[in-house]
Amino acid sequence: MIIQLKQDISDAQKDSLIAEVNQIGYKITEVKTQLGDYLVGIGKKDFDIRRIGKKEGIEDIHIVSDEYKLVSKKWKVKPTSIDLGDGIYIKDGDMAVIAGPCSIESEEQIRKVIAHLKENNIKMMRGGVFKPRSSPYAFRGLGIDGLKLWYDLAQEAGIKIVTEVMQVSQIEEMYPYVDIYQVGARNTQNFNLLDELGKVDKAVMIKRGISGTIEELLQSAEYVFSGGNEKLILCERGIRTYERASRNTLDLNAVPILKAKSHLPVIVDPSHGIGIRAYVPQMALSGVMSGADGIIYETHEIPEKAYSDGQQTLDFAQSSLLAEQIRKTFALRKTFALL
Amino acid sequence: MIIQLKQDISDAQKDSLIAEVNQIGYKITEVKTQLGDYLVGIGKKDFDIRRIGKKEGIEDIHIVSDEYKLVSKKWKVKPTSIDLGDGIYIKDGDMAVIAGPCSIESEEQIRKVIAHLKENNIKMMRGGVFKPRSSPYAFRGLGIDGLKLWYDLAQEAGIKIVTEVMQVSQIEEMYPYVDIYQVGARNTQNFNLLDELGKVDKAVMIKRGISGTIEELLQSAEYVFSGGNEKLILCERGIRTYERASRNTLDLNAVPILKAKSHLPVIVDPSHGIGIRAYVPQMALSGVMSGADGIIYETHEIPEKAYSDGQQTLDFAQSSLLAEQIRKTFALRKTFALL
Amino acid sequence: MIIQLKQDISDAQKDSLIAEVNQIGYKITEVKTQLGDYLVGIGKKDFDIRRIGKKEGIEDIHIVSDEYKLVSKKWKVKPTSIDLGDGIYIKDGDMAVIAGPCSIESEEQIRKVIAHLKENNIKMMRGGVFKPRSSPYAFRGLGIDGLKLWYDLAQEAGIKIVTEVMQVSQIEEMYPYVDIYQVGARNTQNFNLLDELGKVDKAVMIKRGISGTIEELLQSAEYVFSGGNEKLILCERGIRTYERASRNTLDLNAVPILKAKSHLPVIVDPSHGIGIRAYVPQMALSGVMSGADGIIYETHEIPEKAYSDGQQTLDFAQSSLLAEQIRKTFALRKTFALL
Amino acid sequence: MIIQLKQDISDAQKDSLIAEVNQIGYKITEVKTQLGDYLVGIGKKDFDIRRIGKKEGIEDIHIVSDEYKLVSKKWKVKPTSIDLGDGIYIKDGDMAVIAGPCSIESEEQIRKVIAHLKENNIKMMRGGVFKPRSSPYAFRGLGIDGLKLWYDLAQEAGIKIVTEVMQVSQIEEMYPYVDIYQVGARNTQNFNLLDELGKVDKAVMIKRGISGTIEELLQSAEYVFSGGNEKLILCERGIRTYERASRNTLDLNAVPILKAKSHLPVIVDPSHGIGIRAYVPQMALSGVMSGADGIIYETHEIPEKAYSDGQQTLDFAQSSLLAEQIRKTFALRKTFALL
Repeated sequence: MIIQLKQDISDAQKDSLIAEVNQIGYKITEVKTQLGDYLVGIGKKDFDIRRIGKKEGIEDIHIVSDEYKLVSKKWKVKPTSIDLGDGIYIKDGDMAVIAGPCSIESEEQIRKVIAHLKENNIKMMRGGVFKPRSSPYAFRGLGIDGLKLWYDLAQEAGIKIVTEVMQVSQIEEMYPYVDIYQVGARNTQNFNLLDELGKVDKAVMIKRGISGTIEELLQSAEYVFSGGNEKLILCERGIRTYERASRNTLDLNAVPILKAKSHLPVIVDPSHGIGIRAYVPQMALSGVMSGADGIIYETHEIPEKAYSDGQQTLDFAQSSLLAEQIRKTFALRKTFALL
Repeated sequence: MIIQLKQDISDAQKDSLIAEVNQIGYKITEVKTQLGDYLVGIGKKDFDIRRIGKKEGIEDIHIVSDEYKLVSKKWKVKPTSIDLGDGIYIKDGDMAVIAGPCSIESEEQIRKVIAHLKENNIKMMRGGVFKPRSSPYAFRGLGIDGLKLWYDLAQEAGIKIVTEVMQVSQIEEMYPYVDIYQVGARNTQNFNLLDELGKVDKAVMIKRGISGTIEELLQSAEYVFSGGNEKLILCERGIRTYERASRNTLDLNAVPILKAKSHLPVIVDPSHGIGIRAYVPQMALSGVMSGADGIIYETHEIPEKAYSDGQQTLDFAQSSLLAEQIRKTFALRKTFALL
Repeated sequence: MIIQLKQDISDAQKDSLIAEVNQIGYKITEVKTQLGDYLVGIGKKDFDIRRIGKKEGIEDIHIVSDEYKLVSKKWKVKPTSIDLGDGIYIKDGDMAVIAGPCSIESEEQIRKVIAHLKENNIKMMRGGVFKPRSSPYAFRGLGIDGLKLWYDLAQEAGIKIVTEVMQVSQIEEMYPYVDIYQVGARNTQNFNLLDELGKVDKAVMIKRGISGTIEELLQSAEYVFSGGNEKLILCERGIRTYERASRNTLDLNAVPILKAKSHLPVIVDPSHGIGIRAYVPQMALSGVMSGADGIIYETHEIPEKAYSDGQQTLDFAQSSLLAEQIRKTFALRKTFALL
Repeated sequence: MIIQLKQDISDAQKDSLIAEVNQIGYKITEVKTQLGDYLVGIGKKDFDIRRIGKKEGIEDIHIVSDEYKLVSKKWKVKPTSIDLGDGIYIKDGDMAVIAGPCSIESEEQIRKVIAHLKENNIKMMRGGVFKPRSSPYAFRGLGIDGLKLWYDLAQEAGIKIVTEVMQVSQIEEMYPYVDIYQVGARNTQNFNLLDELGKVDKAVMIKRGISGTIEELLQSAEYVFSGGNEKLILCERGIRTYERASRNTLDLNAVPILKAKSHLPVIVDPSHGIGIRAYVPQMALSGVMSGADGIIYETHEIPEKAYSDGQQTLDFAQSSLLAEQIRKTFALRKTFALL
């Protein structure tokens, strides 16, 4: 059960409301986000909703049977729109294009990518400064100094920054320089990180876990929302299966399912989803047709020289072509009656 | 190694050629298809290709390092085109639409589906008369009589028939009534069935196994080709993974990979690929953008009353809309430079 | 619902009984096996069991909610014992040891294996004469002639034969020479093969599918049982997962689950289950402790020279040691109170 | 390449050595643990090992081709023994039994479990005070206060504590009260946590990831070792597959493979591995026979009333029986010649 509270609810009204819900046998979690105050009630007993509904200080009340509550479409039918400022959005009915290198490598590299993005009217740039690597001996990224350098150049160019946060202690130091915190596939169930990102007033993009279910992705988003942050984006990036011909198995089934279950925008990452440069464009365009609200892909001036993920990174010519094809495909999709 | 033989090679020339290849340490399989005669040499030793190339009676010779040989693009760059007669093809550069019910149920049902297909200019109809069912107590199809009935009606309407063959003994009895034999996902590695389908001069569509790899699908096609039948179509229909929110995980990554590795046409089945009616259209259109040469989906006048697979079957209104969207999406794709 | 019929039920009584069950809304399948006559009723409606129970000609009646019925422990609590003659059994409370090469290769090879088995008091020999191979160019076995040769030697030595049947047409030709028909992992859902094996009065061992569920394995056994053959053995042989360090993932969880759900004996195949010679013994002994009723493993005089599966095949010294360890481990297990 | 340094190597010698290795084209990571000082060299070029070997200050030098280096058996053949004090070890050739509840719930519960462990001569107790839960609304554990309470009681009873650490900030506060830090299956690739645990002088048990490979588990251990902590234990606890009849698929194949690849001890968790109380004992004993150095399982006075994981938790009677069976099975295994 989700109870949306009125702005002007009094403390006494709230206490009385909580007492009533507890008496029914439901456990209450209070949630205060940028957009509103909620009580989330967890329990299994049936009860007469009017018993709560008649109490004072309530804006609206919803029964949500899903395990995740606040990210469910069952109570919030209107899609969530992520406003990044300067007229840049990630939202249903729009097509966000996010491009950039796997790793931020140098000032020169950043300048070149930004120039490429501007030429192609791409407003959001991805790149890693903290890199999760399975081997401790691999390149782990330029760190916070790399982010600051990037921020100065991106700011000037009017470009928004999407980058991965790996641990709680980085949240605060990254805050001034980031537009969207990315939670990586290995951290989708790092619950402490999710809790802390709930306290921040910036957008968070959560990647599906390496072998995460659709349900678990929504539960992870629920962590951030229930922590106080509604600015959430979900990202399908391929799952681990037995198939060895591709790096991951891009699960585009997840897109219409997530869009039906949740009010949050959904992005597709074809670069990690297939892991082979030559086929990234097809998977990007498939992602558009699956109903995604955006595509995030890797590009680099000379993919062969990239510090990481070169095998799945587009060069600038491929990237320009793809950005145009994404937009044309989306324009066609908008003429269709789909979910 | 694949050696394409000249039409007029003499027996003596062939014997001499085989002796030479054997001497190198390669095992020879002779393959005679509708389109040509081949020797497939299996071995691992390096040798000077001129040693073979200078022999008489040879059209061409190719080194193919893949485990599968005859279905590889490494020797046959030109895509295979499946000609079903009456100007109906399944081929690269075209978009085949195949629709119909999961099971053939009755004359009335067949008539209604055919009328629907004709209205929408769909030339190929799917339907099961032999149904593989995990429980022995479930409906197992109308059998050969159902197929004959269907054939008469389809023939009259100029519509081609795609239907599953489950065992060797059915091949011959089905032969007069079928345009494309379908090998189902549970039979992809039924090697005896594949062997026997190699002896037939009709098209064969092989579905990827329930948890089959891309490599195994190509090897299964190799069985049919090496048995003597080049008229092959591959079909991606979703694989088994841990995800439970969809029936299968449609692996669209397989499409560009199969198209790059093989000269055979590739079809996508979004109905089994996601298993949920409301999302079949998105997956069909994603399939088009992934580079598929055709889409096969389930439709029925009243899906709720279908004998099987109703939950993933489109009604006729949805089917009409989808057929149009598939064509529009394909028209856009043709304007793109893709694989 | 399973209705066990009396031996002396009259036709009139049976017709009256079937009519009554049909009227309740249940579909009836008549099953006649080596051991008894049954009516299996499939339906979902609740009804008063006394309505059936009071009819004449009934031995017993059971409500079985599982999807599989006849192989369920819900109606037949007593474990099924497979009697192979000459005092050789596969059954609960016993430990069957089955060993032999992947492929039958030659008379000499058979003689050597048989001598090894006799030395170690192993009474059942495995070996393939029809080999399912993913590539059409690989060794496909010695065929029926190999089986006849093997039979003569095994017969003389008092050893029982377990070998794979790949297609319906082989059932009859193999019949005189085989003690246990093995259904391979690629044929677990070859329903026509299962149907036909239901008509045979010899034991059938069904291997779990490459990525088959426990439920599907039981349904496949249900096919054979409902076809008329109760002499069934289930075999866990590893499943396909994302892990690449072993050939398959041996799922020993399946053993206690199968033993709890079904009255059929369960065998473990550690050779295919891990696919690495050095670790086959550990997995065999783990299989014993998981509650298996037998172990089937691969052995060959010189594994490195085996025609197939050499990498997972024990040499005779390893095999002798393992057979002894299996028996000691089983002796200990018998002193434990387990499922 | 791993270079073990002499205790008394001078700074000048070390600098000269590093310069030499860098010149070959290898990147050096310096590692200082409780037991020794190492240089780990990462690179791919071939070189003459004598070029390094003749330098001064070197104890020994090893070429290790595995992706993981320090945890590999290729340089350290002698198994690592974890000494927890008071004569309690986790080590090859021994059988550690670790038991306890999923969650620490109350003083009374702790007292009861401890009494049960003492009766059964079990020296190590598991229990969660920080609980990773997929839903933010579920019970998240008693936290540090629960741990302190537990510590006092365990200390008195001479029982060692194994408990999960979820984030970097907890490492220090938990330090005085914990004997083995457990890294949970959702944190196996939380690289920051692994880095920090490398700085601590207490044992760390790393669970295999939800869908982690054997290779990734070893790489995660490499993080901790290369951070400075050699006191490492690996734990197989089941992986995520398509099978739905059990909670996870316990992959006992991993045990002999891990034991062959690494010098670290390996523990099996049958409770999470199958997730069904009735079958935990079989899986525990299978784990013993697979070659594990210990078993960790869940027990609670009244499993039905446990705050979490009750369905897979043994009651005390079952636990007593299992502890005895584990020891008997291990005693038998010790008489066998296995890996």
